[in-house]
Amino acid sequence: MNKDYIYLDHAAATPMDPLVIEAMLPYFSEKFFNPSSPYAPAIFTKREYQDAKARLARCLGVMADELIMTAGATESVNLAFNAANGVSLISAIEHDSVINSAKARSEVKLIPPMKNGRIDPNTVKKMLTPDVGFVSVALVNHELGYIQPIEEIAEIVKAERLRRQENGEPLPLIFHTDASQAAALIDVKIKRLGVDLLTLSAAKVYGPKQVGLLWVRPGVTLKANIFGGGQELGLRSGTENVAGVVGFATALELAQKRRSAEVKRLRKLREELVKDLRQAFPDMLISSDMKKSLVSFLNISFPGIDAERLVFLLESRGVLVATGSACAANSGTRSHVLASVGLSESEIDGSLRLTLGKLNNDENIKRAGEFIIEAVQAEMKRTRR
Amino acid sequence: MNKDYIYLDHAAATPMDPLVIEAMLPYFSEKFFNPSSPYAPAIFTKREYQDAKARLARCLGVMADELIMTAGATESVNLAFNAANGVSLISAIEHDSVINSAKARSEVKLIPPMKNGRIDPNTVKKMLTPDVGFVSVALVNHELGYIQPIEEIAEIVKAERLRRQENGEPLPLIFHTDASQAAALIDVKIKRLGVDLLTLSAAKVYGPKQVGLLWVRPGVTLKANIFGGGQELGLRSGTENVAGVVGFATALELAQKRRSAEVKRLRKLREELVKDLRQAFPDMLISSDMKKSLVSFLNISFPGIDAERLVFLLESRGVLVATGSACAANSGTRSHVLASVGLSESEIDGSLRLTLGKLNNDENIKRAGEFIIEAVQAEMKRTRR
Repeated sequence: MNKDYIYLDHAAATPMDPLVIEAMLPYFSEKFFNPSSPYAPAIFTKREYQDAKARLARCLGVMADELIMTAGATESVNLAFNAANGVSLISAIEHDSVINSAKARSEVKLIPPMKNGRIDPNTVKKMLTPDVGFVSVALVNHELGYIQPIEEIAEIVKAERLRRQENGEPLPLIFHTDASQAAALIDVKIKRLGVDLLTLSAAKVYGPKQVGLLWVRPGVTLKANIFGGGQELGLRSGTENVAGVVGFATALELAQKRRSAEVKRLRKLREELVKDLRQAFPDMLISSDMKKSLVSFLNISFPGIDAERLVFLLESRGVLVATGSACAANSGTRSHVLASVGLSESEIDGSLRLTLGKLNNDENIKRAGEFIIEAVQAEMKRTRR
Repeated sequence: MNKDYIYLDHAAATPMDPLVIEAMLPYFSEKFFNPSSPYAPAIFTKREYQDAKARLARCLGVMADELIMTAGATESVNLAFNAANGVSLISAIEHDSVINSAKARSEVKLIPPMKNGRIDPNTVKKMLTPDVGFVSVALVNHELGYIQPIEEIAEIVKAERLRRQENGEPLPLIFHTDASQAAALIDVKIKRLGVDLLTLSAAKVYGPKQVGLLWVRPGVTLKANIFGGGQELGLRSGTENVAGVVGFATALELAQKRRSAEVKRLRKLREELVKDLRQAFPDMLISSDMKKSLVSFLNISFPGIDAERLVFLLESRGVLVATGSACAANSGTRSHVLASVGLSESEIDGSLRLTLGKLNNDENIKRAGEFIIEAVQAEMKRTRR
């Protein structure tokens, strides 16, 4: 493995921060106890687990007992959809975990996005018919990085809820957002968003994989997916992942501390990268909205070029990029996100998702830009022949 | 926290082996990639994940693609019960995860155990009526340590399956065993057991918590609990826990290597402990069958004594013991396992579960015995006043 790679796929996975690993290690060895055991060392471990949940809650502006800890965003999303009744209204550009959770549990209607990836609250309003019981829109789209107007959608959901109440219509209406891609760079203050359920992943904020949470607004009735010892208020049984949750809390606190500086830093890196690429390819298609998307995202397309070949060429120069979300890429199907925002097949096939983060700096972004330009030019030359 | 404690609760949690932690660490940092990503370093990580599954499979005598990796035994058990049709026939002394998974998904009939904790195959035969679609009996009971005659029960299940086939009865019949408590000290060769589904936990074999597996016999149709990116053959979506699965494989291989020596060692320790305790308390009730239970288990009872006070007294001397399973203890209810094998309320209330393991040796077991004798004598004196 080339150790000098330039990693441009922070939306797929993030390396754990050394401080996160350090915080977790004691729970692998001397503090290994089962938090449900009756003796003091185990009770201390349980307290540290609860303290970690309290730290997570503080970052999110909520109470610790509103957080259900899970084995990652996918499980959180599935738990959220257990509250679905009636039709589920979800954006057409959701992650597979949302789409497949929804389909497994309900009839699904897809909200078409605008060209830039925005889910227009007016469209939601129109589609929010009386048979809809569950709405799900990700805070930050996982391919384009678009930051959705969750607060505005929440207002519409609330208005419809009120209307049903006044009309005596019994179908509850619940609004969930998957904020997994957001938390590294957006201060997720849940109350401000106005949602009922919120999913978060440790793996996307330089924390451990297979650790996530679902925030549940008090009053929302959930049904467990996993039954057993009754942990997490009976909503998610299984011996608590103390190490993982401590790691998650540490990671989210670090993200919060570093966030504003990191946003500035990555914005500048993205601007430079776009400038260099734009200079070489004036016709390059940029699918990420440069104003409304998270500063770490840059989805670009070179129609007529095979992005999978680009991935391969770039990798030989040590530049690691994705063509779409890792999951979608793996299944060999075209990105439903890019198709939904209206890209043609050749535009989709020529798309790269670059996502910046901690492993990037001025020097390696400059170099990545050069390699991308070289690779695209080589492919353009080859395909013109 | 007293660092010089004597840990006698290996059935509740095991400390991770240093070799396990060492094997996992690279996947937290330099090998952090999403196994679904398209570039070589991620593909290497995926191969190492698949290799870890192959190593687990080799330990169990099965194929890697028959293993569904989960976030622990509780999730595995829940996934297993998704295959339940009709009535579920489970032993009355199963772990809460089995009992509650079963109840959440089906009508449940409980198989009463014999006095020593044995699930008699003849009882299973009698209770295996045509409406039963799922049978679940743990290989090793989590409180008594009794090693169940899984092979014999499997023969009965097969005979009933054959009968249904010949009679044209369409209800399928599936046999699951939770082997979580077994794998540290029993060579679990799945094919020999004759089951259809088998649950295993990394947390009970000196591996990481929140890592488990479900072995699925080819031909058994399962339904996912968690939908999303389609990982684990679509039966358990979510970015793979590479570190956790590598840790699990390392832990199970170590268990296999050390097993026969460890069984001998623990048998001797248990014999010595029993001898010392028996000498002090000739009337002591031993609920664990000394011949048919796993050598690490010693469930004893001092009727009339409050075991919760014993836990507290022993803890002050650094001896950590449980009164029942950690989960049951936490919910403040009496052990259903001990009630099922016929213990009276005062016998249950006076019961300690001692489970030996890696952290024990001649010296600390001798000392633990002395402290237990002191504590019980003190309590006997106090309660006689």
